[in-house]
Amino acid sequence: MLKLYHHPMSAASRYVRLLTGEYGEKPELVEERTWERRREFLAMNPAATLPVLIEDDGAPIVGGIVAGEYLDETRGVFSRDKRLMPEKPVERAEVRRLTEWFMEKFDAEVTRYLVRERVFKLEMPKSEGGGSPDASAIRAARTNSKHHLRYIGWLAESRNWLAGPRLTQADLAAAAALSVLDYLGEIPWESEPAAKEWYSRIKSRPSFRPLLSERVRGVPAVQHYADLDF
Amino acid sequence: MLKLYHHPMSAASRYVRLLTGEYGEKPELVEERTWERRREFLAMNPAATLPVLIEDDGAPIVGGIVAGEYLDETRGVFSRDKRLMPEKPVERAEVRRLTEWFMEKFDAEVTRYLVRERVFKLEMPKSEGGGSPDASAIRAARTNSKHHLRYIGWLAESRNWLAGPRLTQADLAAAAALSVLDYLGEIPWESEPAAKEWYSRIKSRPSFRPLLSERVRGVPAVQHYADLDF
Repeated sequence: MLKLYHHPMSAASRYVRLLTGEYGEKPELVEERTWERRREFLAMNPAATLPVLIEDDGAPIVGGIVAGEYLDETRGVFSRDKRLMPEKPVERAEVRRLTEWFMEKFDAEVTRYLVRERVFKLEMPKSEGGGSPDASAIRAARTNSKHHLRYIGWLAESRNWLAGPRLTQADLAAAAALSVLDYLGEIPWESEPAAKEWYSRIKSRPSFRPLLSERVRGVPAVQHYADLDF
Repeated sequence: MLKLYHHPMSAASRYVRLLTGEYGEKPELVEERTWERRREFLAMNPAATLPVLIEDDGAPIVGGIVAGEYLDETRGVFSRDKRLMPEKPVERAEVRRLTEWFMEKFDAEVTRYLVRERVFKLEMPKSEGGGSPDASAIRAARTNSKHHLRYIGWLAESRNWLAGPRLTQADLAAAAALSVLDYLGEIPWESEPAAKEWYSRIKSRPSFRPLLSERVRGVPAVQHYADLDF
């Protein structure tokens, strides 16, 4: 049995939910508000980041990328053509480069600012940094976001899926990050038709459904968020 | 044949050099000054980060963590008891958590600031951000550094090596990052004797020698840098 400490607005948490969904599993979800720095949570992950995955009360598996490797090693390798990693090491390196890009670089330049300013600050007490959003942080993140969307568009135009001919972990990592921003209405889809076509393909997968039906208290989703034809 | 685009003050580059050294290989080294944004380099890695590993003129393997996985898949799995990864997926997750900690978190909170302010700014033209060091960035990085050194000390006290009973990639990731700071005299070893004892064990490995004999132009190493008994 899998248990996932997550937050609906954490891209790395969504990534792990998509992976488990693709492998036909449904982890028990525990919502964690990391800014509360709960003692039991810090004991599992002193970096206080999400997600943390636990299998059968075993040792914590910390972080989206690390959980992705774990799920590949314990599920992917037994899944034949449903495996979300290619066979050749050098092709795996390309999947990992892009997974890291969307989980780390995109997060550091875009997602974490938009989510912090537009969602978490509403929930956090003033003493933890809550309060009104910082307009300049939002502006900077939106500018960075355009470059990333263009890069996805370029990848989607040059390849069938982002890392090559088949669906891989890299597509789920990118889609997880974009889905958080899309919820907030932060993706100008019309400017990147190839990115939009790729996202609509991935959005219609059954693994995506639980994310599309979820709502965050106090933060309405943009109107087209759950539409498969957006 | 392996070729590594690296910089002597890049912790992730040092990590890959240690890994290849442990597996008995010596990549051809090409020093890259990422702030020059060389066109051929950006074509290999649009994120413009180091290192980039190439095997036999194949596709680029981008980043320290990704290269570490590649070397495990192409060398480690054939190295029996010299493999730098444990066998069980959940133990591998712990190695990956710590590797990520030292390659990403420690870098984002400590190493990149100290290296930028104390080394790269000397080499960069003013237009690229070169000039005199920012004392407040250095101060903040030094404060953060203490917490990380304490964490290494705690791990080294509780376990034989950082991720468990055997030497793994996590030790090399941590040692690579610390060796950059140690070069600059930024590690107060006396305050963490367990961390010091762990580092002295890893420093005396043959894979470490090439790092200890290397000097960066214009940046003297601290006196004890190459001493195995420091």
